[in-house]
Amino acid sequence: MHRTAVKKVVLEGVLDANEALAQANREKFDQAGNYVINLMSSPGAGKTALLERTLERVRGRLRLGVLEGDVQTTLDADRLARFHIPLVQVNTESGFGGECHLDANMVRSGLGELPLSDIDVLVIENVGNLVCPAEFRVGEDTRVMVYSVTEGEEKPLKYPLMFRSADLVLVNKIDLLEHLDFDLELFIANLEAVNPGVSRMLVSARTGRGVDEWCSWMERRKPT
Amino acid sequence: MHRTAVKKVVLEGVLDANEALAQANREKFDQAGNYVINLMSSPGAGKTALLERTLERVRGRLRLGVLEGDVQTTLDADRLARFHIPLVQVNTESGFGGECHLDANMVRSGLGELPLSDIDVLVIENVGNLVCPAEFRVGEDTRVMVYSVTEGEEKPLKYPLMFRSADLVLVNKIDLLEHLDFDLELFIANLEAVNPGVSRMLVSARTGRGVDEWCSWMERRKPT
Repeated sequence: MHRTAVKKVVLEGVLDANEALAQANREKFDQAGNYVINLMSSPGAGKTALLERTLERVRGRLRLGVLEGDVQTTLDADRLARFHIPLVQVNTESGFGGECHLDANMVRSGLGELPLSDIDVLVIENVGNLVCPAEFRVGEDTRVMVYSVTEGEEKPLKYPLMFRSADLVLVNKIDLLEHLDFDLELFIANLEAVNPGVSRMLVSARTGRGVDEWCSWMERRKPT
Repeated sequence: MHRTAVKKVVLEGVLDANEALAQANREKFDQAGNYVINLMSSPGAGKTALLERTLERVRGRLRLGVLEGDVQTTLDADRLARFHIPLVQVNTESGFGGECHLDANMVRSGLGELPLSDIDVLVIENVGNLVCPAEFRVGEDTRVMVYSVTEGEEKPLKYPLMFRSADLVLVNKIDLLEHLDFDLELFIANLEAVNPGVSRMLVSARTGRGVDEWCSWMERRKPT
């Protein structure tokens, strides 16, 4: 019991500091005129693949920038480098055993590498993790979750915090539906149970299905 | 910088406490004669489905017990309840925003509900998360990872800590290979890069492929 109590106090302190730094990020974004998306998911749900499909479509219409968060490697940033967009990789490994999320300070440390005034929409691709990233605001306008149908129907109930905090859920890998025992209606019902009325789109980064709809959603949010 | 320094000190304290409690769990397991598996994976990689297939096969040959870790719900435990095995669910939601892993103290709190002396092999099904569970020993003999081929080839490089600490990797959902662009050889090469020589098995909880081999592996570890 003692450990829990100590930890709680400390982590509230960390969250206070995070909130202040998130606010500072927010002010930078407002000055530069950025709409900022915190993109979250489990590992391997397809965030980077979806960004690749997105970048192929929006070039010339929307100035997209990306901040990539990963525990280690620049693999994801390397995949996006061919689009010649403003792009920075933040590795969280210098923290305790490799931080399992991006916090406002990590995002802040990456912002200096980005020409914010040349960006309409900044996508912050969070570390692949269905729990921890949801606890840390980074100054975003909105939270978008990518969820892969290979992960099962019950995850909204088991990991409610992230599903509850999402403004839009992109249900990805929909092309695999015919090869899985995934019950889409049950998943939607579970999602509705924790986040009633949340927007969602069925997408496939592999076939391109739904990606236009997602790009339009983003373009409608382009700051004027 | 200040935040990081403070955090480091506190978390080392937490890990010291965890180590002491893990040792206490270990002594209980030794007294009862349990072989203990810490089963880890991303969310939705198929840990529970694999346990279902396992329990169908080993009944009568191996006395399996399960400690289920989840942020919320008893959904996983409910799925295993039909096997009438020693089974307990530990929910981590009472912690800070829902703890993203099991630690030694959470496991300890569940052990009182299990008849340890009636168990040969205890499987501790950790919270679905590719980062945080790897940082916390819970008194286990071995660490087994379930990895789904839907998660991509590069994850061992991006999340090296868990892959490095695994003693066996069960490469699951192998039945989906023909529908994916997953390069199995590249995944194995990435796995070898962070954990040279680690044991692995190709399995499918859906078709049953490889499950006998995994059950044999477990039976060979039954304490005598």
